[in-house]
Amino acid sequence: MTACWAPLPPGSGFGPGNLPYGVAVDADGRTQVVTRVGDAVLTVADAVEPSLRSLVDGPTLDPLLAAGPDTWRRVREQLVDHLAEPRHERPLTPVADVGLLLPFTVGDYVDFYSSIHHATNLGRLFRPDAEPLLPNWRRLPVGYHGRAGTVAVSGTPVVRPTGLVAEGDEVVRRPSGQLDLELEVGFVVGPGNEPGHPIDPDEADDHVFGVVLVNDWSARDLQAFEYQPLGPFLGKSFLTTVSPWVVPLAALADHLVPPPRQEPAPDPSLRAERPWGLDLELEVAINGTIVTRTCFADLYWTFAQQLAHLTSNGATTRPGDLFASGTVSGPTEGELGSLIELTQRGAHPVTLADGTRRSWLLDGDTVTLGARAPGLRGAPPIDLGQAVGTIVAAPPRSPRAPGARR
Amino acid sequence: MTACWAPLPPGSGFGPGNLPYGVAVDADGRTQVVTRVGDAVLTVADAVEPSLRSLVDGPTLDPLLAAGPDTWRRVREQLVDHLAEPRHERPLTPVADVGLLLPFTVGDYVDFYSSIHHATNLGRLFRPDAEPLLPNWRRLPVGYHGRAGTVAVSGTPVVRPTGLVAEGDEVVRRPSGQLDLELEVGFVVGPGNEPGHPIDPDEADDHVFGVVLVNDWSARDLQAFEYQPLGPFLGKSFLTTVSPWVVPLAALADHLVPPPRQEPAPDPSLRAERPWGLDLELEVAINGTIVTRTCFADLYWTFAQQLAHLTSNGATTRPGDLFASGTVSGPTEGELGSLIELTQRGAHPVTLADGTRRSWLLDGDTVTLGARAPGLRGAPPIDLGQAVGTIVAAPPRSPRAPGARR
Repeated sequence: MTACWAPLPPGSGFGPGNLPYGVAVDADGRTQVVTRVGDAVLTVADAVEPSLRSLVDGPTLDPLLAAGPDTWRRVREQLVDHLAEPRHERPLTPVADVGLLLPFTVGDYVDFYSSIHHATNLGRLFRPDAEPLLPNWRRLPVGYHGRAGTVAVSGTPVVRPTGLVAEGDEVVRRPSGQLDLELEVGFVVGPGNEPGHPIDPDEADDHVFGVVLVNDWSARDLQAFEYQPLGPFLGKSFLTTVSPWVVPLAALADHLVPPPRQEPAPDPSLRAERPWGLDLELEVAINGTIVTRTCFADLYWTFAQQLAHLTSNGATTRPGDLFASGTVSGPTEGELGSLIELTQRGAHPVTLADGTRRSWLLDGDTVTLGARAPGLRGAPPIDLGQAVGTIVAAPPRSPRAPGARR
Repeated sequence: MTACWAPLPPGSGFGPGNLPYGVAVDADGRTQVVTRVGDAVLTVADAVEPSLRSLVDGPTLDPLLAAGPDTWRRVREQLVDHLAEPRHERPLTPVADVGLLLPFTVGDYVDFYSSIHHATNLGRLFRPDAEPLLPNWRRLPVGYHGRAGTVAVSGTPVVRPTGLVAEGDEVVRRPSGQLDLELEVGFVVGPGNEPGHPIDPDEADDHVFGVVLVNDWSARDLQAFEYQPLGPFLGKSFLTTVSPWVVPLAALADHLVPPPRQEPAPDPSLRAERPWGLDLELEVAINGTIVTRTCFADLYWTFAQQLAHLTSNGATTRPGDLFASGTVSGPTEGELGSLIELTQRGAHPVTLADGTRRSWLLDGDTVTLGARAPGLRGAPPIDLGQAVGTIVAAPPRSPRAPGARR
């Protein structure tokens, strides 16, 4: 057990083994890079040596992300030492007294599709008469670029998107009637690669800074009409919610596990010797009712393979790039990471604790994603925090919109 | 004819009616926001009033982009006045003596698919037995997000991408054998919109700062294997080349023309009263041989409709967002904006001036995109400059790559 002078509630997943990074704004409007210890926040710049302070005294994690793994290690060691040294003990600011901001500038946002259960479920729903997995699926981690500019921090309202949907032979514009959630885990990149020089999967920890939860909100009716042949666009681009705490990969080192067996064996450029599966327990709640509990460890393609694939054509990554797993679903009914799977495209609604049923999300619904790495050998768990969003009605047609303007 | 003390070669498309913005690094390593006049560059900060200088004294156009249309107008007026005032006359730095950098930080990069000729040609090639246009194509501007981090300025080497391709029943990793170009026009966004509040197409000029040329390099073999169901990814993400000069929309005001008739009439959210077609003459050369000449004015979906669509679900845009037209092809054989169309997927190679033939691009080939708005009523043309790229062989397998490492 690591020593720590800060109070830790029993079973807290925010002990000195976690020390996630976030950006907090306090009651005086000061914005600072912080870590979370128990139910309080500690200003990182107060805990590290002067030469490291410039990396953590701005309003984002961007300089720290760019600094690379040696510096990440030093900052983390100094945080641990600071918390272990009794003479540093002092009252900390409760996390409830600060606002948590999007902690880094998102470079490119890539969303993968790496759960074999999710891809199989969607294949069955959309192409019932064909093989559910397309020929490329087991050969490479299928993915696409999402909208980086609409990645927002937990708590950001989810304005119901409006768009064109097919109704029989008609195409009409209306607020989405099939608003869905997607349970995902995201990875935040630090230093990138040189153009033309792919990242080896076994070097993933030289590049990946940490882990967040991601809710890749999806309007299934918009998506269904638009997505061929170039993929998802407005059905997803309105908002993507991330948790406020970036849990360093270093905090999860004991939770790296061998991934599932891959058959056929992937191309050598995607093969790793080190275990890059990540043992996380994930859950989804709608208005407090848990509708899904699943685990991340059996994701078919690991984050190390995703990063290797992303750069395998010579493309570069930059500090602040975010890549997400794709919807995480397990093999059983209670482990499905989206409503489209849970309700079989709306046909079998889920029932919430208050007795109401949901085929898709309603205005006012609050979706909470949560995750933790289990406590091992008596150690406390590592909590990833939550990604929360509440659905807000689509705004009425703006007075400047064409229908009203003319 | 606007007065101008700077020397202008006969027929120059960089007269005082153009005044595009770029970022130049000079022989002393100084990086400055410049405009181009004839064959020389003028430092913008030297030509505007002190209160505007902070917008143009950094290493990018980012502050100017964010400042919005009233400021854009003032800066442009002051540049015109500065060049008209004989007492400002002085020698300017030849454009050949500076390096031109990527002039702005790309936020999100969206690529549309808005040429009906291109979409029809590709539909025929890929789905010969079906309607070439999918049901959504005439209803909305189909598009997807590309990789912002690999948008690079003209002259950046085009490293041939390597990736997984299908060969019969086998899947092999190799350098792309079907490297292609795409002739596109891109639009650079300034101030964005509020979440949930779409941009009206008739307000496009409050948001769009200017225009660049875009070559959306494409590896067709990588793309063919990967692109279903989530769209293009590694087949495009290795590099996108843009021209170094952002031509302000204000310079093209006389070149806005009515777009083609749209049938069926688009949704009201996509309808505009103002003419947002853009009268540009485009061309593509490979190693100096012009292989395509086409015009931009008959693009089916205008840039104003593209921007309206992009925000129609409530998504926001940011300064530095770039959206491109998609490959611009005209109706005839000499007007095709990609090799996949020009050669019918490689079946009918094009012949260059030196007698060699190309189904796809070879290492060492140089592709040059050019564009200008024609001179009207005796005025000189407006030159958009060029987007140039030379293909470089795929690097040999890196010593750190798995095959070599083990």
